[in-house]
Amino acid sequence: MSDRVDALVPFAPDRPKTRLSDVLTPAERREFADAMLDDVLAALDAAGFSPRLLSTDPTNRDVPETVDERPLTAAVNAVLADREPSPESPLAVVMADLALATPRALSRLRGSGDVVLAAGLGGGTNALVSRSPDFRVDYHGASYLDHLRAARTVGATVREVDSRLLATDIDERADLADVLLHGDGAARDWLVDAGFELDAGDGRVSVVREE
Amino acid sequence: MSDRVDALVPFAPDRPKTRLSDVLTPAERREFADAMLDDVLAALDAAGFSPRLLSTDPTNRDVPETVDERPLTAAVNAVLADREPSPESPLAVVMADLALATPRALSRLRGSGDVVLAAGLGGGTNALVSRSPDFRVDYHGASYLDHLRAARTVGATVREVDSRLLATDIDERADLADVLLHGDGAARDWLVDAGFELDAGDGRVSVVREE
Repeated sequence: MSDRVDALVPFAPDRPKTRLSDVLTPAERREFADAMLDDVLAALDAAGFSPRLLSTDPTNRDVPETVDERPLTAAVNAVLADREPSPESPLAVVMADLALATPRALSRLRGSGDVVLAAGLGGGTNALVSRSPDFRVDYHGASYLDHLRAARTVGATVREVDSRLLATDIDERADLADVLLHGDGAARDWLVDAGFELDAGDGRVSVVREE
Repeated sequence: MSDRVDALVPFAPDRPKTRLSDVLTPAERREFADAMLDDVLAALDAAGFSPRLLSTDPTNRDVPETVDERPLTAAVNAVLADREPSPESPLAVVMADLALATPRALSRLRGSGDVVLAAGLGGGTNALVSRSPDFRVDYHGASYLDHLRAARTVGATVREVDSRLLATDIDERADLADVLLHGDGAARDWLVDAGFELDAGDGRVSVVREE
């Protein structure tokens, strides 16, 4: 567990967080996506991962970077095919919008399993570790069930990580409440600076923004 | 860890799941809430808990039951005050709509800590265990942060359980997708029988219902 594990972090700076367009301008969405990426990269580093960006455009960040303009699935699979993960040389793939991800939650990915999967809300796959040279991803639709199936198809053992902090990708207005409630990094600071506050109603807590 | 832990399961049969009223009739919401309760009670039993319903009306179920018409917070606090949880005699409080809760996820609540908390999406508290005679609940608004504070105020040690399966309470249409995707009990069966299917779009997977 002491060796650092390579972690690929896909990022699309050109089209950030379109489902937040009802509350944030395009420029704000870019800033907020950058803040979340800051948090994810810092948490990965603290959890013993060596992150590498897989970006659709150069970001000029101080972190190793692979630029690939193709859609997410094709770009990740190209790295998996080239990299050939193995038990001695695992590769993680961690989404850039996991603003709640703590080092402790991310560390849970590092345990045993040829393929380790952390589901997102609504059927996605927010983080995974592969130690199998044959496992490939398909992020379209309910990818989590597809990934369970794909792992079995290549004979890989699967371990599922049950984590709220890894499940909460920040896509929609309601998710911003979870960042304000549970976050403690750059993304939360950005939202506070932008005027967002919690709005406690009878159901789940939401957010309001100062005019 | 071998002793069974008492678990209180609040349930309001008279006003089930109002935020699902756009997709389910009142009678259907009652049936679906009952199916989720079946799943939660079975999972608690399998995880070594002894569940007791805290219901606003008699349910005639084959499970110990306390009837208290008061709102959630008052009813739970009355039990906490009467029961005086301690390290030797902990008490769990687990929401009835955790349709994804597995025995394994619920078992994680049983570990150490004067107060053990599992957050829900949007700031709620979906499950807790108290070993403190002084800890009280307040389920209004962002209860999770309030419960962290309340535990500290009474000098209780806190352990947070980071679980997607415990975080996903089933309140809204979008949550039904998670039951179809990840559930394997009565609630999932009920949704399938009622004609619900996954609807994979570009974002999170949602549900559609056969006409």
